[in-house]
Amino acid sequence: MKAIITYPPKGGAKFVDVDIHEKNEIKLRTLYVGVCGTDKEIVLGKLPFARPEYGNSLVLGHEALAMVEDPGDSKIFRKGDVVVPMVRRPGKCKMCSIGRWDYCEDGDFVESGIRGKNGFMREEFYDEDRYLVKVREKNLDLLVLTEPLKNVMKMVEIFGFLEKRLPWYCDDSTYTCKNLYVFGTGPEGLLISSVFKYIGFNVIAINRHPPSETVAKFLEINKVEYLDTSSESIEDKVKKYPMDFAIDAVGSMEIMYTISKNIKNNGIVLLFGTSGQLLNGNKDFITDIVDKNLLIAGSTDGSKQNYVEAVNFIEENGMRLGFNILITKYFKFQELESMDLVKFFTEKEKNEIKKVIRFI
Amino acid sequence: MKAIITYPPKGGAKFVDVDIHEKNEIKLRTLYVGVCGTDKEIVLGKLPFARPEYGNSLVLGHEALAMVEDPGDSKIFRKGDVVVPMVRRPGKCKMCSIGRWDYCEDGDFVESGIRGKNGFMREEFYDEDRYLVKVREKNLDLLVLTEPLKNVMKMVEIFGFLEKRLPWYCDDSTYTCKNLYVFGTGPEGLLISSVFKYIGFNVIAINRHPPSETVAKFLEINKVEYLDTSSESIEDKVKKYPMDFAIDAVGSMEIMYTISKNIKNNGIVLLFGTSGQLLNGNKDFITDIVDKNLLIAGSTDGSKQNYVEAVNFIEENGMRLGFNILITKYFKFQELESMDLVKFFTEKEKNEIKKVIRFI
Amino acid sequence: MKAIITYPPKGGAKFVDVDIHEKNEIKLRTLYVGVCGTDKEIVLGKLPFARPEYGNSLVLGHEALAMVEDPGDSKIFRKGDVVVPMVRRPGKCKMCSIGRWDYCEDGDFVESGIRGKNGFMREEFYDEDRYLVKVREKNLDLLVLTEPLKNVMKMVEIFGFLEKRLPWYCDDSTYTCKNLYVFGTGPEGLLISSVFKYIGFNVIAINRHPPSETVAKFLEINKVEYLDTSSESIEDKVKKYPMDFAIDAVGSMEIMYTISKNIKNNGIVLLFGTSGQLLNGNKDFITDIVDKNLLIAGSTDGSKQNYVEAVNFIEENGMRLGFNILITKYFKFQELESMDLVKFFTEKEKNEIKKVIRFI
Amino acid sequence: MKAIITYPPKGGAKFVDVDIHEKNEIKLRTLYVGVCGTDKEIVLGKLPFARPEYGNSLVLGHEALAMVEDPGDSKIFRKGDVVVPMVRRPGKCKMCSIGRWDYCEDGDFVESGIRGKNGFMREEFYDEDRYLVKVREKNLDLLVLTEPLKNVMKMVEIFGFLEKRLPWYCDDSTYTCKNLYVFGTGPEGLLISSVFKYIGFNVIAINRHPPSETVAKFLEINKVEYLDTSSESIEDKVKKYPMDFAIDAVGSMEIMYTISKNIKNNGIVLLFGTSGQLLNGNKDFITDIVDKNLLIAGSTDGSKQNYVEAVNFIEENGMRLGFNILITKYFKFQELESMDLVKFFTEKEKNEIKKVIRFI
Repeated sequence: MKAIITYPPKGGAKFVDVDIHEKNEIKLRTLYVGVCGTDKEIVLGKLPFARPEYGNSLVLGHEALAMVEDPGDSKIFRKGDVVVPMVRRPGKCKMCSIGRWDYCEDGDFVESGIRGKNGFMREEFYDEDRYLVKVREKNLDLLVLTEPLKNVMKMVEIFGFLEKRLPWYCDDSTYTCKNLYVFGTGPEGLLISSVFKYIGFNVIAINRHPPSETVAKFLEINKVEYLDTSSESIEDKVKKYPMDFAIDAVGSMEIMYTISKNIKNNGIVLLFGTSGQLLNGNKDFITDIVDKNLLIAGSTDGSKQNYVEAVNFIEENGMRLGFNILITKYFKFQELESMDLVKFFTEKEKNEIKKVIRFI
Repeated sequence: MKAIITYPPKGGAKFVDVDIHEKNEIKLRTLYVGVCGTDKEIVLGKLPFARPEYGNSLVLGHEALAMVEDPGDSKIFRKGDVVVPMVRRPGKCKMCSIGRWDYCEDGDFVESGIRGKNGFMREEFYDEDRYLVKVREKNLDLLVLTEPLKNVMKMVEIFGFLEKRLPWYCDDSTYTCKNLYVFGTGPEGLLISSVFKYIGFNVIAINRHPPSETVAKFLEINKVEYLDTSSESIEDKVKKYPMDFAIDAVGSMEIMYTISKNIKNNGIVLLFGTSGQLLNGNKDFITDIVDKNLLIAGSTDGSKQNYVEAVNFIEENGMRLGFNILITKYFKFQELESMDLVKFFTEKEKNEIKKVIRFI
Repeated sequence: MKAIITYPPKGGAKFVDVDIHEKNEIKLRTLYVGVCGTDKEIVLGKLPFARPEYGNSLVLGHEALAMVEDPGDSKIFRKGDVVVPMVRRPGKCKMCSIGRWDYCEDGDFVESGIRGKNGFMREEFYDEDRYLVKVREKNLDLLVLTEPLKNVMKMVEIFGFLEKRLPWYCDDSTYTCKNLYVFGTGPEGLLISSVFKYIGFNVIAINRHPPSETVAKFLEINKVEYLDTSSESIEDKVKKYPMDFAIDAVGSMEIMYTISKNIKNNGIVLLFGTSGQLLNGNKDFITDIVDKNLLIAGSTDGSKQNYVEAVNFIEENGMRLGFNILITKYFKFQELESMDLVKFFTEKEKNEIKKVIRFI
Repeated sequence: MKAIITYPPKGGAKFVDVDIHEKNEIKLRTLYVGVCGTDKEIVLGKLPFARPEYGNSLVLGHEALAMVEDPGDSKIFRKGDVVVPMVRRPGKCKMCSIGRWDYCEDGDFVESGIRGKNGFMREEFYDEDRYLVKVREKNLDLLVLTEPLKNVMKMVEIFGFLEKRLPWYCDDSTYTCKNLYVFGTGPEGLLISSVFKYIGFNVIAINRHPPSETVAKFLEINKVEYLDTSSESIEDKVKKYPMDFAIDAVGSMEIMYTISKNIKNNGIVLLFGTSGQLLNGNKDFITDIVDKNLLIAGSTDGSKQNYVEAVNFIEENGMRLGFNILITKYFKFQELESMDLVKFFTEKEKNEIKKVIRFI
């Protein structure tokens, strides 16, 4: 079988023939696999925890959509069902054993295409009932966005928990009076903006440059305002729209400082991005967090229920909210055999948001 | 009436005669007032938000114990009742109006002895029912610690909320398997260590030097371990006692980095300290927060219920848990007339933890 | 203007000319008004709290869809917008003032078409921004179901709160292993079954007789099982599908006893129905609640956010989940002029689930 | 060894010689065992789930205080430590495995002296670290009340969870404006009244007859008002003190009706009692629960953390709050050899609240 592999943690990317033996009973045919920043980091050898399942190579790919080819003895799936396979698989800690391996306590899990388990950039794979999420709209290729969207659904879940601290909603019970600043306009940032706008927030998406055409169009569809900090400062914006809530999908300390400085008392901050940019410290950072009673929550991965919510959201709102715009280019799997794969994974075309590999 | 005043935000400290007219009906005689780091900052002119109630001077003092001299028409208090007056007084925002001015949304509150309201370092003052917390043990001068302790009670409240995210307790429902690292061994740090040990945590109190005799004695009584990072690293300590929970009572970025680097997944971090120390950024800071699903909560002030809890805790456990050790010296109010007050507020004697001014 | 009025609390129903002066700035044209059990009770004089806005008559109708005819100075609405007007309007208690008048503390609210405020069974009315929920799909007449569905959304909210007590989800984080028994197959019961099935529960809808054709069809579309207790006992059913969760949309003590007897430990019970049926007590009822650590929550009305959620749900899933089947008959408003209105409101045709009055 | 046994589920009570082999490593000498209503029910054969550990007899006694005689290899206990042994011991369900066997899901647990495990009315027993709660005040025989008090601590925990639904506290953050009605003035009812008064509620303890001298004295110490419904109706009392919160420690349907009829909107109801009294239904019961958005929670048993909290409460407040009054008579274990034990367990003397058996 053809597959795209890497040699973690060193990196690289090759289109090769592989022979993988998996004991799970459900045979799946890969339909689509999305490419994301994590793939880039693995290929560049910048993800220190990337590791093979065995030997020295790892099949790449964790954002997948697949079709059941042979359900084996599964009581849940039938031939022809379309599914999203989960990325993370549980270890043995308490949280893993009770169903929330997105909150794994000891790091003893594997992640398909990332650490310790072969990914989905191959023609077929075998899996278990437990890690497959069935979709209803079998022909909706947008569902390849389920994996990145499930992270947003976990953020919604965490927000729902944190806001119980105080009666934080508007005086008509909605969130329409609340301003959310979303830092970052890559695929995750855009999905975050879309989902929280849908919930009712006034959302402002932020980046340091003017938006690409694609980004501008997506935000227009979603009625999300764009703030280009190269032409208008956040300080000016918050005078008009006070910052009640912030989500960072970038991961820089500078953004953390900007948030802690500008956000209102009792603000909620969710951190998703992890770019690791380095900046000098700022003496008011912690003072602001403390004096404003901020809650800051990091969020990684999502539960199976978050996958289910993501599937529902895409099926019901994906087309209407322009999720199709986010997939800026499709590549046939076979095409990749003759391409420079390192370049494919690490360079972006103008206006590119997300590339998807099509296996059918 | 004699009082100790300052000229905020410029600072300074003077023992003077004042003539203050207050319209509240309950007349109180001051018994004790504690001195703390906030007083030092005000006197040094380092607290930018310090401001007078009117004119250009402010009576200092926010950690007080007082006796009702004339209850006026109060239906709650009688002559001779001993009370702790609250520091913060509400503004008009939603959280203030529903009773939680410790979560004031717009900063439109005043704080006795700090911003916009004269404090308690004077022989008498007038106040309202609503802001006085009655004590039972009328002769327990330790109750002057109620004000700093109510901040700890709010941390207990926040912890109780945040831990509902996950089944975070030990497999026997207690917290005895959980290690809490408390950064800082000043009065607040020591009170935090004492209260969370009482709740059941294994507590490690941390500072960068060996403990003073007083600190060592207090921690021994409370069965809290001391970690001197000048002789043993946190990295070594967490190998033996993994960091499940951390509370910072110092406020430095370096500590934030240490915590985010060393704490376990799903860790809880409460920030109380606000020293504003400056340090270079660290590229893994946010990555750690995110990948470990951390919750970070800043906490400031406390509710009236937190005052009530603090009073109860001191009355029931204060003597047994060595709170008396924390008050390292008493000064008679009159003595201060002839002392160098700036020095009094800004310098610490060897082994000093907290000074208290006695008015009776 | 033509309107259908009643004389509360005595009841009755008349098609009359009315002259109503309302000061709100937004003029609305009524599009659809649904008829429900509450209307029946009012007309029969069985709702003791029904009362006029002024005088002795009240315009009926609380499940409405309307179009903005003149937005006045509204900054939110434009001519042609389609909206759902809220039923309950706030009083002055704390919960009303912070935006949750569905949790009104003192009962000092009004409800359109029910108590103290004229309803929507008239050609036009005036309202405020604050109480109108805009819809996106302007031609989706199913949105007349928003009002009954918002009650279900509040139940989802309450469930989401109560389940935080314990890690109650399945060992893959979803609810697919959990069985929900919904008592009652009227409009609310069916909407409850549909929404909680959508969330992931295995839902069993229960009544004491075989399902009507319409009910059977709706449940089939929603993949909800029907249990006819005249032919199979709940005791037998729970042997196969243990009762984890129960929602009562009927309101009889007998059902309460059945639930408390059959539900598993740590079960969750939501009560919505209020039929007031009388039955003899059962000595194990309270013992069961206690020994099983049950949580029982009554739920009435819903917040504006619950309305927004209901609108979204109908727009995205209403057609697919067969909500159209629930509206078994449309009547033109004018037709009603010559009909026996008491009969119209109080009698049901075979297979009827919900009648809707069309104004356009 | 001498022991008091019963023959469950038939009942009876005998003072006999027993020979019990237990494999646990810590050898304990029994100090005190309290007698309660559950013992009475077992002896009368009215507790259907009572069952032997093996054979046909069961050692009675579940409210115990004991001293470590031989700690074996325990790293936690030393000879001479005084402990409270837990009653319930976990099974294998999820909640048991994560430490909350008080929320056991499948009923597959044992309870010392009640079901499936021999109790503590014997001279010595062997146990494990995990089920022993150490006390500090070794000579405080009041600690025999830890077991009944831990149930109250669980109620405090549940209240703390449920009140997060809404901002339910008074407008100064305390509970002093909230009225709690406690039904029942047996030992549990009195402990409930004491603890919730301590938290800050205005507490009204209710029974159908005038208080005994002992009850009156205990309530006076605790500043809890007594309502004798044979001379004043609850309806009259709630006019003066609206019912915000109710706890039932009796278990009758009549009380449930009284509560649902009289409690305010958004009220909280905790059920602890399980007397199984039978009464006719009341048609407004469920309507009240629903329309008032009530939360009703059954509560049984308590976690180890609840035991720890109970120990702390007794050590710090027990004497001051008159817990000693609750133990109306001590009996030496040997005395019981010659007494009519069935009578001992099932009849109460005038003014009796709780009997305690002394083994030392």
